[in-house]
Amino acid sequence: MEKVFDHGGNVHKFLRETIAKDTNYFDFSANINPLGLSQSISSSIKDNINRIIHYPDVDGYDLKNIISQYYHTSYNYLTLGNGAVELLYILCNLLQPKNALILAPSFSEYERAARAAKAKIEYYYLKEHENFTLDIENLILSIKQHDILFIGNPNNPTGTLLTSNDIEKIVSQAKENNCFVVVDESFIDFLPDSEKYTSRHLVKYFDNLLVLHSLTKFYAIPGLRLGFAITNSKLTKSLHKVKDPWNVNALAQTAGIAALKDLKYQENSRAFMVQEIDFFYESLKTITKIKVYKPTVNFILANIESSTLNSAELKSIFLNENILIRDCSNYPGLSEYYVRFAIKNHDENVFLIKGLKKILTDGK
Amino acid sequence: MEKVFDHGGNVHKFLRETIAKDTNYFDFSANINPLGLSQSISSSIKDNINRIIHYPDVDGYDLKNIISQYYHTSYNYLTLGNGAVELLYILCNLLQPKNALILAPSFSEYERAARAAKAKIEYYYLKEHENFTLDIENLILSIKQHDILFIGNPNNPTGTLLTSNDIEKIVSQAKENNCFVVVDESFIDFLPDSEKYTSRHLVKYFDNLLVLHSLTKFYAIPGLRLGFAITNSKLTKSLHKVKDPWNVNALAQTAGIAALKDLKYQENSRAFMVQEIDFFYESLKTITKIKVYKPTVNFILANIESSTLNSAELKSIFLNENILIRDCSNYPGLSEYYVRFAIKNHDENVFLIKGLKKILTDGK
Repeated sequence: MEKVFDHGGNVHKFLRETIAKDTNYFDFSANINPLGLSQSISSSIKDNINRIIHYPDVDGYDLKNIISQYYHTSYNYLTLGNGAVELLYILCNLLQPKNALILAPSFSEYERAARAAKAKIEYYYLKEHENFTLDIENLILSIKQHDILFIGNPNNPTGTLLTSNDIEKIVSQAKENNCFVVVDESFIDFLPDSEKYTSRHLVKYFDNLLVLHSLTKFYAIPGLRLGFAITNSKLTKSLHKVKDPWNVNALAQTAGIAALKDLKYQENSRAFMVQEIDFFYESLKTITKIKVYKPTVNFILANIESSTLNSAELKSIFLNENILIRDCSNYPGLSEYYVRFAIKNHDENVFLIKGLKKILTDGK
Repeated sequence: MEKVFDHGGNVHKFLRETIAKDTNYFDFSANINPLGLSQSISSSIKDNINRIIHYPDVDGYDLKNIISQYYHTSYNYLTLGNGAVELLYILCNLLQPKNALILAPSFSEYERAARAAKAKIEYYYLKEHENFTLDIENLILSIKQHDILFIGNPNNPTGTLLTSNDIEKIVSQAKENNCFVVVDESFIDFLPDSEKYTSRHLVKYFDNLLVLHSLTKFYAIPGLRLGFAITNSKLTKSLHKVKDPWNVNALAQTAGIAALKDLKYQENSRAFMVQEIDFFYESLKTITKIKVYKPTVNFILANIESSTLNSAELKSIFLNENILIRDCSNYPGLSEYYVRFAIKNHDENVFLIKGLKKILTDGK
């Protein structure tokens, strides 16, 4: 895979190339819920291992039903994915966009999926001096020949957030320009007040909108692959027609059902995250040689330009301590001084912050 | 999903619509190894559940290594799939074939994947009076404007088999006509002498060949999704470029490794199947109102035209006994009198044969 599409969380390569498989390491490079695998998911998998001798349910009937209840949407608007990312590829292959507009910096799979369908890519750069917040009016003016626009909400790696009203304005104007909009809400479950930000309900009113949702980050099951798309029923039918019918494995379906039923885990996760985001952010702000961007969910973007290090060097120093962080220099729109930290459990965060202080204070 | 693309093995819909979830049923509609889930796979999943909190290895490094050893191929020729079927969609989206030639009857996903990439479909009909065996010279003459050809080897549902030499002739002639050939070897592991039939080694010599291989049928893990493609390294790179990087979940990777190491399960499966295929075939031949096509692997195609029933009626009668069989009338090239039986364990097979005798002898 090309460098520009390298992701965080590739612990396998790291373990192969650097340390023995059984060494402990701290992965701050992948944005996964630090509460980890819930007992309910773990049990659901163990109890259902024998299900794998059958094909997975092509309809995803039980899982779609619980998703439609939980997220207040219609069964007929839902397409399940082998992770949310798979659905980007299926959508792009179906729509065959010619010109894609992608916010930068943002999750690199939007670009990769659009390129796989041979789209030309144009970036809409979020501005560093505006703390990467989006100027909606300006974005709207930028939609010209574009037939698809990707927005992360919250956006990875900046953590910036748009309200439902903001999104509605964008989607409405995009419709005038025959531009399809993908809103990726894969981190939205971490918000305590996600209703203000979600666009799920807008799918009913706009046929040029698809809301993407991952269940792997909030429920800490990225290895199992599970996500879904919400879009109008006509497009949903088309997505089903061009996708592998068995794309979501049986254990992911089982785990998804257990996850959405586990209200306690959900509450605990959000309660923890609200506190810990604040702690992490305030702690980083006390380090002079780092600029921190205000986080909204479980990761923090930071700039270390005023230190003597660039992001590759900082990553390398941490690697020696068996700590993985995300070097963000391969994001279009970010310089070689950006890093991203996932927010992990409290002790791990304290450990990282302490290390960061020491490294940035001591210099190279 | 349209009727024509309905598959066997959709037990979920059957259970929802017909009987209570906890009712026992016999699934002769899905071609899965009757030895079931091996202890080694089951343990590997249980032991590795905690891995799902990490992203799966995008390189599939360990699994690809063992596949390349086991199947005597190169690591650089391998692309892992979320089931073999996913790879059909990725390939067709990449190659964008205009005209596909598909043997009929054959596995319907070849057609569905080609259609998803907007290809026109033409069938090459295998002839009933030739027991659905393939006339290679005639097929070669039929490749004209076609840019892709799909061959199942062994072919599902007919069970017909081509030797490596046969395939080489086809691929070689196809190359002259700029036609890409997909050879689906998803059932080949069931053969005791698969070396005579596999085309894996031909990938080195023909850049217009991709060999597809499922690991879900022989290892009874269709719910977990796992397959791979073998093709030249240039195309392999392109496939990786246009696919979701995390397409193969962590438990499928783990299970695949355990599966290929379990030589005992492999031996037992083949030994059992050789005997049981023979028993099943000979038993069916004693029923006068059914014509049976000689099986090569774990399923049998049959024609019940000389009974008073069509396949939908036979399926319905069996359903009342909680037995699922595959009504093959939706296969292009087959009439409404064809059914397919998976070969299951001996007692189950005896039970089915007994039932079949009774039904066909009693009539409606």
